[in-house]
Amino acid sequence: MIPTPKAICFDAYGTLFDVHSVGQLAESLFPGKGKALSQLWRDKQVEYTRLRSMSGRYKPFWEITVDALNYCGAALGLDLGAAQRDALMAQYARLSAFPENLQALQRLQASGLPLAIHTNGNPEMIAQAVESAGMSGMFSTVLSADRVRRYKVDASVYQLAPDFFNCQASELLFVSSNGWDICGATWFGFKTLWVNRSGAPAECLDVMPSYIGSSLNDVVALVCGQ
Amino acid sequence: MIPTPKAICFDAYGTLFDVHSVGQLAESLFPGKGKALSQLWRDKQVEYTRLRSMSGRYKPFWEITVDALNYCGAALGLDLGAAQRDALMAQYARLSAFPENLQALQRLQASGLPLAIHTNGNPEMIAQAVESAGMSGMFSTVLSADRVRRYKVDASVYQLAPDFFNCQASELLFVSSNGWDICGATWFGFKTLWVNRSGAPAECLDVMPSYIGSSLNDVVALVCGQ
Repeated sequence: MIPTPKAICFDAYGTLFDVHSVGQLAESLFPGKGKALSQLWRDKQVEYTRLRSMSGRYKPFWEITVDALNYCGAALGLDLGAAQRDALMAQYARLSAFPENLQALQRLQASGLPLAIHTNGNPEMIAQAVESAGMSGMFSTVLSADRVRRYKVDASVYQLAPDFFNCQASELLFVSSNGWDICGATWFGFKTLWVNRSGAPAECLDVMPSYIGSSLNDVVALVCGQ
Repeated sequence: MIPTPKAICFDAYGTLFDVHSVGQLAESLFPGKGKALSQLWRDKQVEYTRLRSMSGRYKPFWEITVDALNYCGAALGLDLGAAQRDALMAQYARLSAFPENLQALQRLQASGLPLAIHTNGNPEMIAQAVESAGMSGMFSTVLSADRVRRYKVDASVYQLAPDFFNCQASELLFVSSNGWDICGATWFGFKTLWVNRSGAPAECLDVMPSYIGSSLNDVVALVCGQ
């Protein structure tokens, strides 16, 4: 257990919402290329957020996700028509929760701690994802990069949380499965827990998360001691 | 031919300097994994420049390149000791020019146009690369991200060129093989030529280069009409 934070902020994609089902659909649409597509799609999506954020060329995350998919179609030589693109985006809109997530979030909620989603996703797509994943009513707020029209790891995105909860960044616990997001959040000043689901190596960025776990159950153990 | 620009700014790695020899060495050190290593190494190197730039955590490009290599060693499960790391970094320090580059640069130089290197690389590593590639004396200046302690595509890096040449960005021709660099430079306001050596698809970022070519000979054709 740690000193109780004022609130817990969760990254969304890969942390709360399991994007694995997108990879399965990609494989069924493009046999033998599903893994390459889902990996490149994610990489391009994240790359485009950074390039647009650095250049002051904001565009909502949903639209960036479509752009990244279109790039992948060209790069991988896929026959990506409107039907395939719509099917993949529809799957992206209705992701599942990771298996342990609902129970872990319920236990954290029962402890009385405010829980927030802190995400690059625009509010509309997050609202849909929350509902699809059965997480309605679990979060006090959605802190979206859309509000500042920059993307992680820009400090203005992380600043949304101390502003909303009216406290210091160091009084908040930030949880993400993305190593780069954890580095940005730790640099910013949050207490951080890296949910390293895939056993990835730590980023070589001269910064380490406050805590490391492998699932959302480790957030419960850290905060509730059980 | 186009209206004569005030100067031509060249990106360095992948545009002037051929990093292919690094991939060859990687393959000889780690048989079967050379391609994966050189690709991930480059991706991580670029990713780290953006994360550090967005977070105000500047570190020189040479050191970022070492960090990215260390990450790759862990991610790919390589037996990457000091000897292998030093050998790969030494290779990175002494890259060749692409075959057509020296003659193309000589023809541009003969036209009287000032030529600049405009790069994320720190001055020390660029000086060594210029010498190794036989390009000594060809450039009026090296405009390095190191001066502003941010990385492309941050506008402060591109701003180095109009400041140095005391002109508008639109009076300069910016040349890069990196699609994302071309997007950033076009957003910034340069005339741009994308040297698309690998036949890559254009980035889906709602911006297109002013011109597209496949080698530095296309810069000569564009500027000198021959």
